[in-house]
Amino acid sequence: MSHIEKFHGIGIVDPTDWKHPKRVTFDPKPYGDYDIDVEIEACGVCGSDIHCASGDWGKVPKNLVVGHEIIGRVVSLGPKCHTGLKIGDRVGVGAQVYSCLECDRCESGNEPYCPKFVTTYSQAYEDGYISQGGYSDHIRVHEHFVIPIPKEIPSHLAAPLLCGGITVFSPLLRNGCGPGKKVGIVGIGGIGHMGLIFANAMGADVYAISRSYAKKEDATKMGAHHFIATKEEPDWGTKYFDTFDLIVVCSSSLTEVDFDIMPKVMKVGGHIVSIAAPSLSEKLTLKPLGLMGVSISNSALGSPAELKILLDMVANENLKIWVETLKIGESGVHEAFERMEKGDVKYRFTFIDYDKEF
Amino acid sequence: MSHIEKFHGIGIVDPTDWKHPKRVTFDPKPYGDYDIDVEIEACGVCGSDIHCASGDWGKVPKNLVVGHEIIGRVVSLGPKCHTGLKIGDRVGVGAQVYSCLECDRCESGNEPYCPKFVTTYSQAYEDGYISQGGYSDHIRVHEHFVIPIPKEIPSHLAAPLLCGGITVFSPLLRNGCGPGKKVGIVGIGGIGHMGLIFANAMGADVYAISRSYAKKEDATKMGAHHFIATKEEPDWGTKYFDTFDLIVVCSSSLTEVDFDIMPKVMKVGGHIVSIAAPSLSEKLTLKPLGLMGVSISNSALGSPAELKILLDMVANENLKIWVETLKIGESGVHEAFERMEKGDVKYRFTFIDYDKEF
Repeated sequence: MSHIEKFHGIGIVDPTDWKHPKRVTFDPKPYGDYDIDVEIEACGVCGSDIHCASGDWGKVPKNLVVGHEIIGRVVSLGPKCHTGLKIGDRVGVGAQVYSCLECDRCESGNEPYCPKFVTTYSQAYEDGYISQGGYSDHIRVHEHFVIPIPKEIPSHLAAPLLCGGITVFSPLLRNGCGPGKKVGIVGIGGIGHMGLIFANAMGADVYAISRSYAKKEDATKMGAHHFIATKEEPDWGTKYFDTFDLIVVCSSSLTEVDFDIMPKVMKVGGHIVSIAAPSLSEKLTLKPLGLMGVSISNSALGSPAELKILLDMVANENLKIWVETLKIGESGVHEAFERMEKGDVKYRFTFIDYDKEF
Repeated sequence: MSHIEKFHGIGIVDPTDWKHPKRVTFDPKPYGDYDIDVEIEACGVCGSDIHCASGDWGKVPKNLVVGHEIIGRVVSLGPKCHTGLKIGDRVGVGAQVYSCLECDRCESGNEPYCPKFVTTYSQAYEDGYISQGGYSDHIRVHEHFVIPIPKEIPSHLAAPLLCGGITVFSPLLRNGCGPGKKVGIVGIGGIGHMGLIFANAMGADVYAISRSYAKKEDATKMGAHHFIATKEEPDWGTKYFDTFDLIVVCSSSLTEVDFDIMPKVMKVGGHIVSIAAPSLSEKLTLKPLGLMGVSISNSALGSPAELKILLDMVANENLKIWVETLKIGESGVHEAFERMEKGDVKYRFTFIDYDKEF
């Protein structure tokens, strides 16, 4: 089977002018026995793309192409591929493209916590090749991280599930979100809005927790049964004392969350899970006895197996996330970067029209 | 039934000279229908006693009598007492003397997390009476917090179970300490040494985690199967990567614990539970993604039901905690305060000879 030798994307050519990315050509990683080439047809825009492209998370590799909410078609398969995927299948690739697949973590469905984890873009594989993301025509990935997409989900609505979606779904699933549970979603943005939709579909009593009432109407349509505006209800710690089994913090910064109040609204044994990916300079500072009876943790992505559960749920329940589509290309990526930085997105962007650009 | 009208204790008469407590006489709380008077025969010395007596946790109430690891005999019962306790029964009273017994938390075995919780000393009941502890001849307590002591456990070894013991046992019990689990105890002091003994008895693979090797021999005798000296093994985060299901932090200060390294040694889904009761000025500061896949929480005491499980285990397994006895009285309390402050205790003090002092 012949492989594509050059990939094309929209990359950060000048880090000092990162909001004006340019068309680039780059070499794919060397073809591995278990690799699949995917011809991309859609890619979601994640907050991480902006953190990474802007240099917020460190030096930007040369001609970096971001994007890790990828939907496309299988166009070639390595000689040892054996997961059953075939040429032409519609598949997704999320924010992880590699793990060792041998360690206890990988073998227990915790691939996102494998120390050999490679992110979909901007990280070196063991051979030094720096991964490139989905604002491009193709991606080459180990088959373990290539997930079939149910036919019921259109590509532009499937893409954001691959990173944002699974990242909020995994802590909901692992912490028992379901009937009889009171679940709060803090931060009603790109990821948080999916949290409301999923938690409602899972049968929980769902609270949207935001700073103001601005998103109340949207949140209700998404599936929230209750709405707390923390800046408008400064006594929310008292009013909602002992309420929550689980709160998932989806805000973009830890500083907008009052971690002194939040434990008060939790039940004993309740879990606060942060999936915020803030600037590295931020710290989480807690009172010495601030987590009495309540746990806090960070959660990373979700496993391929969890992603399959999510995709089946979205397909079976006909869940619709809120997506605005943009055309892939230099101007489309520029617009996405500009508007993401301003928070001008309701609630997630997906790039489409790949066949017109590449 | 007539009730004792005056209690006597060893109290903090002059907060500026707290290490020289004096004999005091005080009124007990008004007799409630469900109250029991206990004639005290032993009381453990807890780190909280020193924090409270010294003013470290706030203003010291007048003639404060501390002590909340109390063993004694029932000498009178309120008219509505109905737990089956009888005059003469040997009983224990721990660090909690009241909760509402009506809220969801109380009804789910979470009395230590009831917002109406009253601590055994230095806290006002709803009527304003400020609780007084067990460095005294008697205590008057709601029957719910009076626990029968199995005959197999001598009073001086039972006393420290009532606060220190249950405080380390509750998080072990609630987080699945048992066969097949790797459990670390950080801080091999009064509470931590009990943690080693209990975790071993519960069947876990037990690691003592201390700064130096000084307590290695003792820890092995207590039941530790492994010993980590964090200051001697600066690479312990790498060496023990992905090891622990549970770590219980029993150190007296949070600053002696490296909370950046500790999450690395946890398994995904593992729990770090802190039962440290540090100065209120201390903060727990974490990196923004420092708890990836790992939770941290604080734990408070344990419920009366959990205390009964602990006492049964200690009796049935014939567990021996390491206790040095001191005579109750002005000089005994002075000695305890002095030596506790210096850390000169292996590993717990219990006051005895109450019949000679009072």
